[in-house]
Amino acid sequence: MKAEIINIGDELLIGQVVNTNASWMATELTLAGVNVVQITAIADHEKAIGNALDQAAGRADIILMTGGLGPTKDDITKKVLASYFNSEMIFHEPTFEQVKAIFKARHFEVSDVNRNQALIPEKCTPLFNKNGTAPGMWFEQNNKVFVSMPGVPFETKVMMKEQVIPKLKEFFKLKSIVYKTVMTTGLGESFLAEKIKDWENNLPENIKLAYLPQPGIVRLRLTAKGENEAQLRKEIDLQVNKLHMLVDDLIFGYDDVTMEEVIGQLLTKSGKTLATAESCTGGYIAQMITSVAGSSNYFMGSVVSYSNRAKINLLNVPEQAIEQHGAVSKSVVEAMATGALKKFNTDYAVATSGIAGPSGGTDEKPVGTTWIALATPNGVKSKLFHFGEHRGRNIRRAALAALDMLRLEIKG
Amino acid sequence: MKAEIINIGDELLIGQVVNTNASWMATELTLAGVNVVQITAIADHEKAIGNALDQAAGRADIILMTGGLGPTKDDITKKVLASYFNSEMIFHEPTFEQVKAIFKARHFEVSDVNRNQALIPEKCTPLFNKNGTAPGMWFEQNNKVFVSMPGVPFETKVMMKEQVIPKLKEFFKLKSIVYKTVMTTGLGESFLAEKIKDWENNLPENIKLAYLPQPGIVRLRLTAKGENEAQLRKEIDLQVNKLHMLVDDLIFGYDDVTMEEVIGQLLTKSGKTLATAESCTGGYIAQMITSVAGSSNYFMGSVVSYSNRAKINLLNVPEQAIEQHGAVSKSVVEAMATGALKKFNTDYAVATSGIAGPSGGTDEKPVGTTWIALATPNGVKSKLFHFGEHRGRNIRRAALAALDMLRLEIKG
Repeated sequence: MKAEIINIGDELLIGQVVNTNASWMATELTLAGVNVVQITAIADHEKAIGNALDQAAGRADIILMTGGLGPTKDDITKKVLASYFNSEMIFHEPTFEQVKAIFKARHFEVSDVNRNQALIPEKCTPLFNKNGTAPGMWFEQNNKVFVSMPGVPFETKVMMKEQVIPKLKEFFKLKSIVYKTVMTTGLGESFLAEKIKDWENNLPENIKLAYLPQPGIVRLRLTAKGENEAQLRKEIDLQVNKLHMLVDDLIFGYDDVTMEEVIGQLLTKSGKTLATAESCTGGYIAQMITSVAGSSNYFMGSVVSYSNRAKINLLNVPEQAIEQHGAVSKSVVEAMATGALKKFNTDYAVATSGIAGPSGGTDEKPVGTTWIALATPNGVKSKLFHFGEHRGRNIRRAALAALDMLRLEIKG
Repeated sequence: MKAEIINIGDELLIGQVVNTNASWMATELTLAGVNVVQITAIADHEKAIGNALDQAAGRADIILMTGGLGPTKDDITKKVLASYFNSEMIFHEPTFEQVKAIFKARHFEVSDVNRNQALIPEKCTPLFNKNGTAPGMWFEQNNKVFVSMPGVPFETKVMMKEQVIPKLKEFFKLKSIVYKTVMTTGLGESFLAEKIKDWENNLPENIKLAYLPQPGIVRLRLTAKGENEAQLRKEIDLQVNKLHMLVDDLIFGYDDVTMEEVIGQLLTKSGKTLATAESCTGGYIAQMITSVAGSSNYFMGSVVSYSNRAKINLLNVPEQAIEQHGAVSKSVVEAMATGALKKFNTDYAVATSGIAGPSGGTDEKPVGTTWIALATPNGVKSKLFHFGEHRGRNIRRAALAALDMLRLEIKG
């Protein structure tokens, strides 16, 4: 089964907007077992839309469009589709009810222009848009399916996930596909691949594995194809269990959960609290943790000690530890963690001290050299890491490594 | 002049990679006065590439391709282009020199496969790739230009900016276009538009204005078209000067400079130092500041006081100020700023205390209520803000507002 994606909007062609809808939609289609053969972005022009539809229909069975459904003059997709499918426009009462409901919630008046928003081509099956005023439109012609969706990512995503993908599965009798993403950290892609290669080679025929690396994280995506969804889910879970036996410590969660969310869940569940003492990460860990709603329940705060003076005054790091070993050292980072634990009176404290770069490296301690410590009421431990040369990535990787050290401690 | 962009790569069609090259290229072309009519993403398939080229050549004068130039088997763009333009492959010595140089720098051995990387179609003009092994290829046919560039964004960008755009300007004798982006903060798009509407209405015919809003920031992009680049630059500068007379305080820089970079420059120039005391921003400001290389010269650190206890213990906020006025109050945020100034012994300290949301709001202090303070050796001042309901955006906007308060103070 082949699909094409057509994204309509002048803003895409002047580069004002990055086409994130396209990659998100392509992922969803791929995961549904559909082969995406082309993604096309065009302007809000009648001829361009017509041509794109003709050409896509010549190559694919499924044509998904986004954009051009707004109430303003420049949005012409609905009109073009009516003409493309030789269809009259009819007034669709449920759509008008939704327009009125949304306007009421935003304290706007409904005008005649808005009444026009409820006009749809007679030949389409409207798809209810619970997050906006423009409904989606589903057309069938010559055993091909054409779907038009709104271009606002939040509206596109919900409509596609809840309505379009299920309807496509039904219409084309697509095989069941089940997938699960295993989130790992602590080992680079090639080392991880080496460690799990026997498991990978012994995966059943109908389960495929994809490595999706990011700085500090490797996502492992398992995709199972077959007839019975419940059965596939079982098969995938079995493989994930086997994976746990090989690399249990590296797995911090599933399906795009973030490390900061996992830490939040672990701290909440155990009723424990956290503080951080950050040198090279410069507040990045605190910012990750506090990006999670409700984090004030378990996160007490951080000292970003970007100067030696701050380390001494605010975290009680002994001056001679810095003099003797330098700020990037085992004794300093451990003193930072212990200092934060005491100052914030928490159950845990993590600390970082490293050379983020691009300058500041020496032969003995090149850029990327990073000490990370974890303090608990039972003592403090630390570990030395060697990250790369890129400042932003070093900060990100140090933050992930610090939180992972905490995760493994809580997990026990 | 019309252009099309063709991005080649299986990773785009399975949604693994967001096509950021496309939007970046579209921006560059638009700014060069070229009208982008279609952006197409296709797989590494010979037939798909050939079809895409045929169709693009039917609509556009300029066809820019990226991707599929790697040394592995799945990258076939070079081969397809040679066949498309009926061209033999020839060995290109300067390319081989570059392959060898890059391999040497990475401590890799050069193999026969790598020798093949120096083969290029005879009919193309090779474009030197200073950041990678694959050269770009420039073809001319029927007064149309076809350019193939590597798909690695850093390589694409440099090649496009330094070679492709200038060559296109020359080949098609494009009019000169000069643009300048004015970075503003502190006023929403519609209020800003109201304030500068007379100026906007009086812009000369050949200068266009675009509003490009982001959370907390509105970028104003001025684009001037004409014959003489130096003259256009003067005309734009004149308009920017006029804009300064209207909204001087709102302008923090030009051409996509970030607030944290501006703050870094101001502090470096004035030889002053900074600390932060963060409640609702949770380390976000510290993280912004320390994302800039060299920030350890002027940034001493931060106390992220996510609990009342931390505010009292680490920043010497008086306990009765919290009891009387609550943590989100003028007196507490001012005490936080003053406390940070003293603890870190800096010239400036900014502090934030607010309700980031989504919960924690009250009738009196709804989500988004945020106090921001700036302490200097001469005293402390503060300001109350009402941001929105979205946690992430509230944090970002509070951080920008705090740094902007500092910017205006240093600027005087």
